[in-house]
Amino acid sequence: MTIDLDLARRLFHDLHEIGFDGTGITRASYDTGENRAHRLLADTARSMGLEVRTDWASNLFMTLPGVDRAAPAVMTGSHVDSVPMGGNFDGAAGVVAGLATLSGWIRDGYKPCRDVTVVAIRAEESAWFPVSYIGSKAAFGLLDAPALEVRQRGSGRTLAEHMVQSGGTPETRETAEVLRPATIRCFLELHIEQGPVLIGTDTTLGVVTGICGSLRYRTVTIEGTYAHSGATPRAFRQDAVVAMAAFVSTLQDHWLTIEAEGGEMTLTFGVCHTDAQQADFSTISGKVSLSIDVRSRDAELLSRMDAHIHAARLSVEQAHRVHIDLGPVTGSLPARLDAGLQRDLLEIADQLDVPACSMPSGAGHDSAIFANLGVPTAMLFVRNANGSHNPDEAMDESDFARAAAVLSDTLKRQSA
Amino acid sequence: MTIDLDLARRLFHDLHEIGFDGTGITRASYDTGENRAHRLLADTARSMGLEVRTDWASNLFMTLPGVDRAAPAVMTGSHVDSVPMGGNFDGAAGVVAGLATLSGWIRDGYKPCRDVTVVAIRAEESAWFPVSYIGSKAAFGLLDAPALEVRQRGSGRTLAEHMVQSGGTPETRETAEVLRPATIRCFLELHIEQGPVLIGTDTTLGVVTGICGSLRYRTVTIEGTYAHSGATPRAFRQDAVVAMAAFVSTLQDHWLTIEAEGGEMTLTFGVCHTDAQQADFSTISGKVSLSIDVRSRDAELLSRMDAHIHAARLSVEQAHRVHIDLGPVTGSLPARLDAGLQRDLLEIADQLDVPACSMPSGAGHDSAIFANLGVPTAMLFVRNANGSHNPDEAMDESDFARAAAVLSDTLKRQSA
Repeated sequence: MTIDLDLARRLFHDLHEIGFDGTGITRASYDTGENRAHRLLADTARSMGLEVRTDWASNLFMTLPGVDRAAPAVMTGSHVDSVPMGGNFDGAAGVVAGLATLSGWIRDGYKPCRDVTVVAIRAEESAWFPVSYIGSKAAFGLLDAPALEVRQRGSGRTLAEHMVQSGGTPETRETAEVLRPATIRCFLELHIEQGPVLIGTDTTLGVVTGICGSLRYRTVTIEGTYAHSGATPRAFRQDAVVAMAAFVSTLQDHWLTIEAEGGEMTLTFGVCHTDAQQADFSTISGKVSLSIDVRSRDAELLSRMDAHIHAARLSVEQAHRVHIDLGPVTGSLPARLDAGLQRDLLEIADQLDVPACSMPSGAGHDSAIFANLGVPTAMLFVRNANGSHNPDEAMDESDFARAAAVLSDTLKRQSA
Repeated sequence: MTIDLDLARRLFHDLHEIGFDGTGITRASYDTGENRAHRLLADTARSMGLEVRTDWASNLFMTLPGVDRAAPAVMTGSHVDSVPMGGNFDGAAGVVAGLATLSGWIRDGYKPCRDVTVVAIRAEESAWFPVSYIGSKAAFGLLDAPALEVRQRGSGRTLAEHMVQSGGTPETRETAEVLRPATIRCFLELHIEQGPVLIGTDTTLGVVTGICGSLRYRTVTIEGTYAHSGATPRAFRQDAVVAMAAFVSTLQDHWLTIEAEGGEMTLTFGVCHTDAQQADFSTISGKVSLSIDVRSRDAELLSRMDAHIHAARLSVEQAHRVHIDLGPVTGSLPARLDAGLQRDLLEIADQLDVPACSMPSGAGHDSAIFANLGVPTAMLFVRNANGSHNPDEAMDESDFARAAAVLSDTLKRQSA
C-alpha cells in the first residue's frame, strides 16, 4: 500500500480537534476553523518537502514537483471548511487523501513526470457566505466584485474582511495571478458520499457522472397580518403560516410530478420560521421566513422549477391574501464530468478489487467549476453512513484507504 | 355624562408609560409591567376613597360600599396584563371604565344599594404562563397546584415565584379566602373587540352572547432527520418542514369542512419554526416546532377537531416517516353569557342611542370563569381598529365614553 495512512489518521485527528464545537464540527469559511485547518495543512506539506503557495483568495496549493515542470499539472483536492455543526470528513477527506498519497509516493521514492498539486479550496460550504464555490471561482478569477461584499452568517462581516483576516488580498482581485484551465491536465476530487446510496447498495466507491446545479431562494418572506387567533374569523385572516404550508405543499407536489415523469431533482425547505420576537401561539402569524433549495443535473429542470416557484407564489398570494417576497436568487450550473477519467477510475477500482459504481452527485462541489471551464474533471465518492452536514458522518478508515489507493493509481496514470 | 373621562385619560396615559417597550405595550403577567399597573390602580382607588384589598393571588378588588353591605355585590373589571408587544387597551379598558364610572358616581354623590367592586384580575394573557385564566381561577380557588410550578416565558421562573414577587402568597392556596359565586350578583366585563366585526359593520358596541373555549397544543414537535439537501433522494427523506406543511394543510382543510357545515371555530398555528441552531438552507430539516390553537363556543366541535388532530398526526407520521409529539394539551371550556344581562345592555345602549349588536367572543376572557360558576355574567365589546395583541390597537375615546356610559347605567340598574 502506497498511501501514508498514519499521516491521514493524524490529519483527521487534528482537523477534528480544530473544529469540534461540543456537538459536531464547525470550521467556518474564512474564519478561525478554516484558517487553522489551512495552517495545519500548509505546515504538513512543508514538512513533507512540497512546494506551498496561496493565491489572492488564500486557496492553498501544495505541489510535488514533476520531472517536466512546464507540463500541465495534475490536481487533486477539495475543501476543509464545514457547515455549522457538521462532520469531520465532508471536504477534508479529499485533501487528506491527496497529502497521504503524495507522502506515500515520497516515501516510496516515486517521482511523477509532471507536477502533482493538492489543493485546499476555500469556502465551499455556502452555509457561511451566500455565494456558491467562492474559493474555486476565485482561483480561476471568476469571483465578481459584489460577492466580496456579502456578509458571513456568523460574524456579520463581509467576505472581503474575512479574506483579509485569513491572509488573502481581496484588493488584488482584478490583478492577481489565477489558474488557467489550459495549465491543468486534470482535476480529481475525492469526497465522502453525502447521501445513502453507497451504504444502501453495499458499494465502497462511487464514480460521479455529473454534478447538480442549484437554484436557491435563501430568504423567502411571506407577509400576512398579525391578528388575534380567537377573534379573527377565517375570511378576515392573512395567515402567513397557512400560506407557507400551502406554498411548500404546492411545490412539493410539483416535485412529485417531475419525479413521476422521470426528472431527477431535489427540493428542500431547510429553514422555515415565524418571527421569534412577535410570534405567539394566540396570534395569527404575520410573517414567515423560508429557504428554497432546488438541485438538478438538468439545467432545463431548474428553469422549469423556477417557473413553478413564481406561479405558486402568485397563486398563494391570491388565495391567502399574503405578500410573498422571494428575495434574491442564487444558483450554479450543473456539470458533466470527464468520461475518460470516469473509465480510468472504474478500471483501476476493478484492478484493485474495490467495488465501485457510477452515480450522480446531488450535492454541489468545486469540481463543477473545474469541469465547466473545460478542465477534465472526475470525482470519487467514498461510502459514508448518516449523510453529511451533520455530526454523525461515518466513513470507515478501510473504505478511505481503498478510495485513496484508487485515487493514487489514477493520479499516477495521469502524471506518468 | 356621569363618567370621569379625565381619570380615564390619565389612567390610559400612565398605563402606556408603564408598558411601552419601544414598539408596543408589554405588561408581563406577575412581573414588572402588571405589578406597576396594579399599584397605579390601587393608589387611584384609594385616592377615590374606595375600599382596596387583594387576595392570595394578588387580584385587586376596589369597592364602592353600598347601602346594604351584606347583599351580593355587583362586580365589573378585567385584566391589565398584555401580550409581548401588545396594545394598551386589551384588558385595561375594562378596569379603567370601572374606575371612571365609580369616580363619576362619587362626584355626583350617587350611592348604590349594594357594593360595587371593580376588579383587576391577574394574568389573563396566557402568553406568559401556559395556563388559561390564572387570576380568575385563583380568585375562586380553582387554580390547581401544578399550575403554580409552570414557568414564565420571559424569566423562566415559576408562577409561584412570580406571585411572591408580586405580593401574593401562593403557599396559602388551599386556605386563603376566595370568592364565592353566591356573593356576586353579577359580573360585567367591558373589553375592546379584538376582531374586525364592529369596525366592519360600523357598530359602536357588541353585546357578547358566548365565549369560546379553547384546545391548545402549544409545543408540537415534528422530528425528521437532518440530511444533505442535494445528496438525499426523496425516498430516503424524513423532512420535518414538508411534514409540517402537510399537517397544517390537512388541519386547515378540516376547518374549511367544518365551516362549510356551519360550524363556528378558529384554528391558528401562531408559532412555527425549524431549529435556529441546526437549520440551514442546504440541510433537510430534522425538527420543526409548531403551536396549535383551536377555539370554539361549541364544546363538541373542540372534541371533533381534537380527533382530527390525532388522526392527522398518524397519517402525516406514516406518509412522511417523521415522529410527531403533540406535547401537553391545555384548554378551557366555552361559556354562555346571561340572557337577562344581554337584554339589559342592548336596552340601555338603545336608550343612550349607542349602536350595538349581539356577537360571540372568539377570544377567551375571565368572564368565562365567572359564567361557568353560575355568576350571571355579561361582556360589552367596544369598537377597536387593527385587532388586539399588537401595538396598533385603536379605540376612539368617544366609543370608550359611550361604552362606559352603557356600563355605568347597567351597573346602576343591577346595584339599585
